[in-house]
Amino acid sequence: MVRTPDRADVERARKRLAGRIRRTPVLEVTEGLGGRPNPLVLKLELLQQTGSFKVRGALNRLLGAEIPRAGVVAASGGNHAAAVAYAASKLGVTARVFMPARASAAKVARVRGYGVEPVLGGAAYADARAAALAEASRTGALDVPAFDDAEVVAGQGTVALELAEQAPFGTLVVAVGGGGLAAGCAAALTGSGVRIVAVETPGTRSLHAALEAGTPVDVEVSGLAADSLGARRIGELPFAILQRAVERVVLVEDDVLLAAQRTLWESCRVLAEPGGAAALAAWLSGQVSARDGERIGIVICGGNVNPGSVVLE
Amino acid sequence: MVRTPDRADVERARKRLAGRIRRTPVLEVTEGLGGRPNPLVLKLELLQQTGSFKVRGALNRLLGAEIPRAGVVAASGGNHAAAVAYAASKLGVTARVFMPARASAAKVARVRGYGVEPVLGGAAYADARAAALAEASRTGALDVPAFDDAEVVAGQGTVALELAEQAPFGTLVVAVGGGGLAAGCAAALTGSGVRIVAVETPGTRSLHAALEAGTPVDVEVSGLAADSLGARRIGELPFAILQRAVERVVLVEDDVLLAAQRTLWESCRVLAEPGGAAALAAWLSGQVSARDGERIGIVICGGNVNPGSVVLE
Repeated sequence: MVRTPDRADVERARKRLAGRIRRTPVLEVTEGLGGRPNPLVLKLELLQQTGSFKVRGALNRLLGAEIPRAGVVAASGGNHAAAVAYAASKLGVTARVFMPARASAAKVARVRGYGVEPVLGGAAYADARAAALAEASRTGALDVPAFDDAEVVAGQGTVALELAEQAPFGTLVVAVGGGGLAAGCAAALTGSGVRIVAVETPGTRSLHAALEAGTPVDVEVSGLAADSLGARRIGELPFAILQRAVERVVLVEDDVLLAAQRTLWESCRVLAEPGGAAALAAWLSGQVSARDGERIGIVICGGNVNPGSVVLE
Repeated sequence: MVRTPDRADVERARKRLAGRIRRTPVLEVTEGLGGRPNPLVLKLELLQQTGSFKVRGALNRLLGAEIPRAGVVAASGGNHAAAVAYAASKLGVTARVFMPARASAAKVARVRGYGVEPVLGGAAYADARAAALAEASRTGALDVPAFDDAEVVAGQGTVALELAEQAPFGTLVVAVGGGGLAAGCAAALTGSGVRIVAVETPGTRSLHAALEAGTPVDVEVSGLAADSLGARRIGELPFAILQRAVERVVLVEDDVLLAAQRTLWESCRVLAEPGGAAALAAWLSGQVSARDGERIGIVICGGNVNPGSVVLE
């Protein structure tokens, strides 16, 4: 069995990333939201370079490796593609990124903005992934997995280390796609006593399915969060961490996601993508139980969306 | 001559407001923006309750007064109206707010969201102001000025006190409408050595005009920032502070405002209203000179805008 990343790996990632990424701000909402009284601390990770947390893991992977002359390759629904393109441009290495044909315009624009023309093709993340692996094998380029990699997981975990310093919390609510962010946060919070609640949508239920099967299995990907949380299968490494560390896994329907996105804009003037609002949606819909007065940490993990797509009341 | 608020007044306001407003987060942008290398610290005051800094001044005024049975009245292009409606609802007092007929939908919705039906009428802020004063005189309600009031100015100044604690800076760039925010920040920073650069648009040049005339005078209000920075005349109190405290006053054209709004979204996933991006626009357009390596503080002061109105590239 492979070794899963632990808190020391996350701390090492943090040192490596220092000065290269943003320490994203937190918004403390002491009045609660949506009629639920617990104070919230929103980790505004959508304000990160590239518009999502993904740059933490990608950059940690690149900084921890010897980069071949052929550069790096990656596959992604969008946010990881942007992160790899950004990290490669900062380090002066070549990147080839593969995205599903229906990747959102906001995400394709992000990648192009970092000087990389993405290769679009296939219906889902898994297709792009196969293309990326074929390319790596053909050229010798370094593969940068979106989530199933110890360095990537450790990089994502720096979100939780930062948040714990910025504003201590008793429960952390975090969305799951391939599981890298949630697993990294869990590794970072080992021994802290913080409870971790993972959030998925019915169309992106990779962790639910893996927990039912006892091992990562394929799921059908669909719905509003498909382009951010839509991994066909949760990563082996993230799953090994999450099956032990997560207190609960909850599902939020797409309409609840949209309502949370709207509440976030109306109450806080924070504009997240649907998947980026999933953790808040779980809280607002009452699916996260909280201890009296405890502060709830919520990761707002991505903002790569067209602002005009937000449906206001 | 009336006494202008000083740092002690701002500190008193801060104590009064503690726990009632949000300590808005800052985003440190160490890589600079728009090709200008200085590190920036963006004070994300648009994430404040009500979507702008205005709630600080309004609440400080209400908390410092005996509220008559008739409640409070206010006039506003929008953000102050929302602030007064919010403050009144929190303190359980009645509010009547007057807004220009062409107030933006986003701002009218804000006011209604706090349970107050605004009275819409007249072409400009000054007309709404006349209606509010008439109402106050008729009913005995407490007038809550949008900017020309010592408690309001002191409340707005808490923005700068917070920012100085969160991330020290050498120059502060801040937009001017009626001058309350800039003057409050100047009062808060007295003796700190921080240079203050005030920003206006050609259609909202109340401070430029007052500096030219040596005293507050009326200006024609127009352009994209009219509904946030569009005071017909700068306040007497703010002007008394600003004519001493401000190092420079710069003008940014409307197209530069829009470009800054877009840059803020594209680089930081922060969605400001045009007037809320004015300070950043001054920086991005090269009109603020910076000392080597000094950190520039920029107040992003409002976000009451329809997200779909942001013009992306």
